[in-house]
Amino acid sequence: MAIQVPLSYPYSMTMQSNTINNWEDRIMAPDLTIAEYRVDNNIRHFHLTAAPIKHNILSNLTIEALGYNGSTPGPLIIMKQGQWIYLTVENQMDEPTALHVHGLAKPNPEDGVPEITPSTPSIAPGESYTYKFLCWQSGTFFYHSSQAFQVSQGLIGPFIVLPDSQHTNPYTVPYLDYILLLQQWEIPQPELGKVFPGTYKPNKFDRNPNYFTINGKAFPDTSPIYVRYGQKIRMRFINKSSSAHSMHLHGHDFRITAIDGFSRPGFMSDTINVAAGIRWEVEFWANNPGIWPLNGSKTFHQSNNGETPGGMTSRVIYV
Amino acid sequence: MAIQVPLSYPYSMTMQSNTINNWEDRIMAPDLTIAEYRVDNNIRHFHLTAAPIKHNILSNLTIEALGYNGSTPGPLIIMKQGQWIYLTVENQMDEPTALHVHGLAKPNPEDGVPEITPSTPSIAPGESYTYKFLCWQSGTFFYHSSQAFQVSQGLIGPFIVLPDSQHTNPYTVPYLDYILLLQQWEIPQPELGKVFPGTYKPNKFDRNPNYFTINGKAFPDTSPIYVRYGQKIRMRFINKSSSAHSMHLHGHDFRITAIDGFSRPGFMSDTINVAAGIRWEVEFWANNPGIWPLNGSKTFHQSNNGETPGGMTSRVIYV
Amino acid sequence: MAIQVPLSYPYSMTMQSNTINNWEDRIMAPDLTIAEYRVDNNIRHFHLTAAPIKHNILSNLTIEALGYNGSTPGPLIIMKQGQWIYLTVENQMDEPTALHVHGLAKPNPEDGVPEITPSTPSIAPGESYTYKFLCWQSGTFFYHSSQAFQVSQGLIGPFIVLPDSQHTNPYTVPYLDYILLLQQWEIPQPELGKVFPGTYKPNKFDRNPNYFTINGKAFPDTSPIYVRYGQKIRMRFINKSSSAHSMHLHGHDFRITAIDGFSRPGFMSDTINVAAGIRWEVEFWANNPGIWPLNGSKTFHQSNNGETPGGMTSRVIYV
Repeated sequence: MAIQVPLSYPYSMTMQSNTINNWEDRIMAPDLTIAEYRVDNNIRHFHLTAAPIKHNILSNLTIEALGYNGSTPGPLIIMKQGQWIYLTVENQMDEPTALHVHGLAKPNPEDGVPEITPSTPSIAPGESYTYKFLCWQSGTFFYHSSQAFQVSQGLIGPFIVLPDSQHTNPYTVPYLDYILLLQQWEIPQPELGKVFPGTYKPNKFDRNPNYFTINGKAFPDTSPIYVRYGQKIRMRFINKSSSAHSMHLHGHDFRITAIDGFSRPGFMSDTINVAAGIRWEVEFWANNPGIWPLNGSKTFHQSNNGETPGGMTSRVIYV
Repeated sequence: MAIQVPLSYPYSMTMQSNTINNWEDRIMAPDLTIAEYRVDNNIRHFHLTAAPIKHNILSNLTIEALGYNGSTPGPLIIMKQGQWIYLTVENQMDEPTALHVHGLAKPNPEDGVPEITPSTPSIAPGESYTYKFLCWQSGTFFYHSSQAFQVSQGLIGPFIVLPDSQHTNPYTVPYLDYILLLQQWEIPQPELGKVFPGTYKPNKFDRNPNYFTINGKAFPDTSPIYVRYGQKIRMRFINKSSSAHSMHLHGHDFRITAIDGFSRPGFMSDTINVAAGIRWEVEFWANNPGIWPLNGSKTFHQSNNGETPGGMTSRVIYV
Repeated sequence: MAIQVPLSYPYSMTMQSNTINNWEDRIMAPDLTIAEYRVDNNIRHFHLTAAPIKHNILSNLTIEALGYNGSTPGPLIIMKQGQWIYLTVENQMDEPTALHVHGLAKPNPEDGVPEITPSTPSIAPGESYTYKFLCWQSGTFFYHSSQAFQVSQGLIGPFIVLPDSQHTNPYTVPYLDYILLLQQWEIPQPELGKVFPGTYKPNKFDRNPNYFTINGKAFPDTSPIYVRYGQKIRMRFINKSSSAHSMHLHGHDFRITAIDGFSRPGFMSDTINVAAGIRWEVEFWANNPGIWPLNGSKTFHQSNNGETPGGMTSRVIYV
């Protein structure tokens, strides 16, 4: 098949432009939107609306889920280290919610788990609340509802803080920086073995998952990861699902860059165990042209309800 | 609600008293008892009785389990590096048992797995046996029955060896040292979605767990972890359940202190993947006042049979 | 019982013979065969035939599986760093297949996942294909079918690359080097609690495994790991099953040697979390004579369909 390279692919990037000034432009979020924001002095203002959505995991498989700004995962939030975020969450659901950014320590009233923390509010249906905190730490994080089963129904999204200039060596900036959020779903199907098309409401308890997605899509509907020969590519894996996912890229080895936003110098691997709540940043040199599988290593997770190829699989494609 | 600080909380600890001499007093075992012992020269004598018990996971949910000295987990055993332990196990069950301390290498006859090791005895109903070995290594360990399905019914407990003075820098002693043992239970319930109160016998095969405990209690019945501003707090996580538990503390970052009793200098994380059999020691600075969730990251594990909030969740509370 | 030491055990190995020249002779693959090969200049030629097989997990429990050269796992492939492999795969099944070596980056057409990579062929029933690539990296790898559910039915095997002389310090060569591949199986049984003997076809979806094997055998049918006092023993754990396995050796501590073929200096543990797709190399000093359990730490995994002792358990025996 002909490969359709998306218009957003930054063809013209060269080593010369590889500076920290444009790291934000290098972030790639296949199948996601990037959250719009308004800048006001040193503050980035974002707005997320939590609401019921319909979402296509596959072109013929729709879930009745919960989403932020109409999608699951919600849009990618990009911050710069040293900035403040004003993050407004609007609740258009019929039950209370709150939002927690996992990692990135913040004052107690901004933490967003009212079931545990009395100082942080619950957001009633129809209401909004604005979380305000300093992004003092760079790294890979994620936001999600404080209600466990709103998360398993889709209320989650990626949250990235890029390092400030004092913490960045220009030579460490990746050419491209891919954000990949892993989810699993227990979708009612008559039996295992193939995809039964239609629209379904996932089981929020999620104990027997049968669909596995990267940025909300299952293979073959996952958008590829495009690279060019010679580029250093970063990939950031985010997982809060109830399974660990062993992510593996064929034809390349990973240099571990960071875990939970903390540097991990000196480790190489070809498969990484991305357990619930833990975020891995890895890099690889695009030195082996071709079309390569990127996938979870568990066999059933490579299927759509038992139909292969499918599941938590994408492709790295050299252009 | 008003916070009830337990009388055992060591309010008066200050940096000046932060020496290795009183580390044992700094150990906190919420919801557990600390095993009593008798000292005889360089030997600590302990006595554990294995017997059927009734145990409350929640105030309204009782399990017919197996316990040591009347509880699951059994009492915390505290040793000092360089001491010998004489650990008597009395079997008041109607089937044979034996006791293995996981980690902390010991001579073959003291290992306590008679199903595999001919030199170590099985303890018949009504009989006792005393294991004797040197605690040469400091760190976090646990004891459990040699019978797999006695473990999943409750025969497990924490076992700590504090370092001797030659291996301790006084400045590395934590202010408080919390011991947290993770378990999961498959308790018969009519359906998922809420707690059905009563008394139940857990399914020993434990393949579809629906209750998740820290030191034998599920949220909201987990006793909090009390800290004061400025303290360096150690937490030790112990897991032998058939799931890995991704433990996460809001508002703070972990410095990894040790895994399996072996030092791990140089690693920070905010979420740790505590897999079966592996013990993590982490520390955090209590520098962010409030009431904070400490929990496993898997969504279903944050519930009691699907009712939230619940499950493997506790609170870190600044007093 | 009397211990039967296999004839293949290299009794006469001494420190003096501990050189890189005979590392290949030191590799031990209990319950596996070692793949025969033909040498042609710097090339090792191997031949694997994929076909339906019957395989005994226990002496009284047979599975109708898929195997390479008549067994699951398939035979151990041993390569030396810097050599080329010509690996012929013959398909005697009634469906297409292909073979992927996990890790060990190779050119795109040799990668063996035709469902994703157009440049690598599918092997039709009755046909063969020869993969050719340079083993530039030493370490522990594995080969498996590109079809997820052919893997869960048995099409997997270990693949080792020994370091060349430039990358080997003679003093780092282990006395013995044990290869241990972990699998799990969902075998139809009337109920949990004991082994129901007979011949069964495993469920390829493998979501509720009830049998757990090391090199294709469940305890008590796992062949022991023989060691002598004073030896440094390497063990290599390979897992592609859908569970992580927490491997633990009683009476000894592990020094982590490598993960995914990459050196990991400076880490000790007594239990390692071998997640799907990840290979751990560990070493221990045989300094504590006896008969010791080596097992996964999850309780149900220590059983055969709920009958204990069983499962993913072997014994380290001093001879």
